[in-house]
Amino acid sequence: MALYALQELARLVGGEIIGGREIEISGVAGIKEAREGEITFLANPKYESYLATTRASAVIADHDGGSSKPIIKVQNPYLAFLKVMALFSGDASARRQKGIHPAAVIAPSARIGADVSIGACCFVGENVELGKRTTILPLVCICDDVKIGEDCFIYPHVTVREHCEIGNRVILHSGVVIGSDGFGYAKDGELNRKIPQIGIVRIEDDVEIGANAAIDRATTDVTLIRRGAKIDNLVQVAHNVVIGENSILAAQVGVSGSTELGRNVVLGGQAGLVGHIRIGDNAMVGAQGGVTKSIPADTKVSGYPAREHSLARKIYALIARLPELFKEVKDLSQRIDAIEKGTRGDPPAKND
Amino acid sequence: MALYALQELARLVGGEIIGGREIEISGVAGIKEAREGEITFLANPKYESYLATTRASAVIADHDGGSSKPIIKVQNPYLAFLKVMALFSGDASARRQKGIHPAAVIAPSARIGADVSIGACCFVGENVELGKRTTILPLVCICDDVKIGEDCFIYPHVTVREHCEIGNRVILHSGVVIGSDGFGYAKDGELNRKIPQIGIVRIEDDVEIGANAAIDRATTDVTLIRRGAKIDNLVQVAHNVVIGENSILAAQVGVSGSTELGRNVVLGGQAGLVGHIRIGDNAMVGAQGGVTKSIPADTKVSGYPAREHSLARKIYALIARLPELFKEVKDLSQRIDAIEKGTRGDPPAKND
Amino acid sequence: MALYALQELARLVGGEIIGGREIEISGVAGIKEAREGEITFLANPKYESYLATTRASAVIADHDGGSSKPIIKVQNPYLAFLKVMALFSGDASARRQKGIHPAAVIAPSARIGADVSIGACCFVGENVELGKRTTILPLVCICDDVKIGEDCFIYPHVTVREHCEIGNRVILHSGVVIGSDGFGYAKDGELNRKIPQIGIVRIEDDVEIGANAAIDRATTDVTLIRRGAKIDNLVQVAHNVVIGENSILAAQVGVSGSTELGRNVVLGGQAGLVGHIRIGDNAMVGAQGGVTKSIPADTKVSGYPAREHSLARKIYALIARLPELFKEVKDLSQRIDAIEKGTRGDPPAKND
Repeated sequence: MALYALQELARLVGGEIIGGREIEISGVAGIKEAREGEITFLANPKYESYLATTRASAVIADHDGGSSKPIIKVQNPYLAFLKVMALFSGDASARRQKGIHPAAVIAPSARIGADVSIGACCFVGENVELGKRTTILPLVCICDDVKIGEDCFIYPHVTVREHCEIGNRVILHSGVVIGSDGFGYAKDGELNRKIPQIGIVRIEDDVEIGANAAIDRATTDVTLIRRGAKIDNLVQVAHNVVIGENSILAAQVGVSGSTELGRNVVLGGQAGLVGHIRIGDNAMVGAQGGVTKSIPADTKVSGYPAREHSLARKIYALIARLPELFKEVKDLSQRIDAIEKGTRGDPPAKND
Repeated sequence: MALYALQELARLVGGEIIGGREIEISGVAGIKEAREGEITFLANPKYESYLATTRASAVIADHDGGSSKPIIKVQNPYLAFLKVMALFSGDASARRQKGIHPAAVIAPSARIGADVSIGACCFVGENVELGKRTTILPLVCICDDVKIGEDCFIYPHVTVREHCEIGNRVILHSGVVIGSDGFGYAKDGELNRKIPQIGIVRIEDDVEIGANAAIDRATTDVTLIRRGAKIDNLVQVAHNVVIGENSILAAQVGVSGSTELGRNVVLGGQAGLVGHIRIGDNAMVGAQGGVTKSIPADTKVSGYPAREHSLARKIYALIARLPELFKEVKDLSQRIDAIEKGTRGDPPAKND
Repeated sequence: MALYALQELARLVGGEIIGGREIEISGVAGIKEAREGEITFLANPKYESYLATTRASAVIADHDGGSSKPIIKVQNPYLAFLKVMALFSGDASARRQKGIHPAAVIAPSARIGADVSIGACCFVGENVELGKRTTILPLVCICDDVKIGEDCFIYPHVTVREHCEIGNRVILHSGVVIGSDGFGYAKDGELNRKIPQIGIVRIEDDVEIGANAAIDRATTDVTLIRRGAKIDNLVQVAHNVVIGENSILAAQVGVSGSTELGRNVVLGGQAGLVGHIRIGDNAMVGAQGGVTKSIPADTKVSGYPAREHSLARKIYALIARLPELFKEVKDLSQRIDAIEKGTRGDPPAKND
């Protein structure tokens, strides 16, 4: 087990030590779970009270909080913790499998780059291209004519359907489906006739897609996930959608067909977007929000139907006050009754 | 690359050409993505403005819209585009694998119809029956005693659990699970005792089920997906549910146990239905709707809890006006105060 | 086919027969689907009317309901039916595969307990431990260093990622992903830098997890699913979450990072919980509820944002009455106008 002096860690993260610089650190952990010898961090104010009770031997924080524990004080505690964690987790790539497993089934026409790993029981179809150092874990299916770039990491049970294109350093988690048919039918009386989905999915560099998410291929053209976008588990991205650069989609989000997201958009968990709308750069949608029309850039919306966030908050607060409003209106009505009957000045009748 | 004269395409779709009939078309694409030489279509009024800017060489539309581009005018542009797209996409079946891969594992008692394809690393269990021309892509698991009809198409990583029955021309996309155990427990003090789920799932002809959707087997009897139903990605269908003919379930819908849908029902994305209710023929549920009781035929509902759609729209519009309502009630209260104090006629006090 | 005298069944469930004890029962079914010779049950009052019309030859119920059919009267009809069903379904374990399939790929360092079954095209990684009598169906991926206890049942297409720990008698349905990376990034300008997820998932005894559900590994430490918890299909459990003993999560629920559930918590379908909150013992969240803050023990909440359930019901009922409230306020305003103009006593102007 590696041991690091607290001073070394402070130097690594560019922080200032407050108290007790002689101790050694043996590992990292969350503030509630940390044991003696470990270092933790405090980033979320909700956890402030744990600063007094944590068993960790040191804490990375943006203030000293009057703690008796040594603090490494930095501006961004989570980012600093991240660097420390990387130090302790060692070289994760060392844990990766190497080479091509003999129980993988690979079409002869596939072009496999240098240092690619392919696990047992994988299927790699005709004309597939796999870039250098890409790792494919067991039980993955790469269909015909797919192109995958360099340094990708593809977890078990991923499907990449025919003709789809994936950039460099892309991570696909278990159960992800890339390029399933879009959901398109044309009514023919009561019957729903399938519209062939002959487009593709293109995923640019540095995208990560969470477990069991589904990205449908375009009807024609392309469903596009731009550079740096991060998509959480169980998300649905419909045909012909565009997800902008560095956008973040939390778990169980659904984006309907042909909707386009700009750069740095953030969609909260379980949010749903109708089709054929545009979400501007830096826009945010609150968790469970139901977005029914386009959103301008730099706007936050929430609720159902989604409205500008501060308005939505105000409205939901007023909804909570509806019982008193109904009571007040009933009360006013009785006071007017009294005035109309000429008994103005008498106290209004009690009611509840 | 195939080239078709615009006149040929117009004849194919039974449309009238407005302007420039001498051009040749080399492909199909969406109105925003189309390049010179390609044909596109305009069906959604939201895209009307692209008619002026598209680089496509021709457009299928239901009006000429004053465009300088040649138009093939038809009543249903999407349906016409579909026919043209089929022309250009060629015979998709030609891309299909043929035959049974030597790395498929097939129980000796399985009965495999003529011209069936089974991909690498598939498992086909005891007594399975596969109808003629059914295609099973790699890495599919068909458990014991399953029956699958003719001309089905089953994508990678599908699971069909034991005893389930699947009709003809059924399409199951990657990650679909057919026949997982229903979610049933009986309370025994604090413990939840599992109720064995010994029923099956039966899927009738011409059903399509999207990526990573889950259809649970019945507790006893059958969970039934009727002829022509179309189910999108990540949908949950619980035990003993019946989905009616030609019904459409958009992505991430959840249908709780024993609920029954009639014919031609449409459930919007992320809608949720409680258990043990009945949704009448042709009923519609808006996206994210939360359905807590049965819905009569030919009714549209939306919102949470779901109400008749025009009422729901009215209510959501009034909710947006709550800030002004609260203000008005406060205002009325002050005016009544003034009347009661005998100062009637004075202007009410300002407030906000 | 086994036949049982009604008296035998009554004895099995400790019930009292009301009417006709001479008949024999050949099977079990739901009240709507049952045929002559079968026994069914009535537990849900919504199905009361079927008591008169069911073709079943006997019914298990908690009252006799004036039925002409023989009734086995018990306190908990579902639990009694369960016992009868188990009698007819026979020994399900007899249907299980036995032994290790030659097409399974198992690392030499894996330790496999006695009477373990491993299906075709499974991958079992280095240092994996599998307890006695655990059954792994085909096409399952157990990554390096995973520990799985005794008598577990793991369905096709499950992924268990490296280092995760699974107790005894755990059931994982098809498509389940255990130990996918948590969704954690640190902002670096516009870029989202991945935070390594180096914790694990620990699943205690007697847990069941539904098809295509995803349980993310912790950032550090552990995502914990405690003893007896039951999780339905397509549920998302984020990193560092704790699910308490015997808690029940219905389909498509989402639990955000670091949130902790107590014992016996029940989350309705499609409910969503924000991160870093605590749900007390025995708390309940209604279907589609959006939980934005901690919930005390023994509390039921519902709606968006989730509020105490009886208040939420009241508020949703008042929302439905908003059209009349707006009308009444308009009416009051006109009556005050009239009073202020000195026309008090005249009937208010009609409006709608």
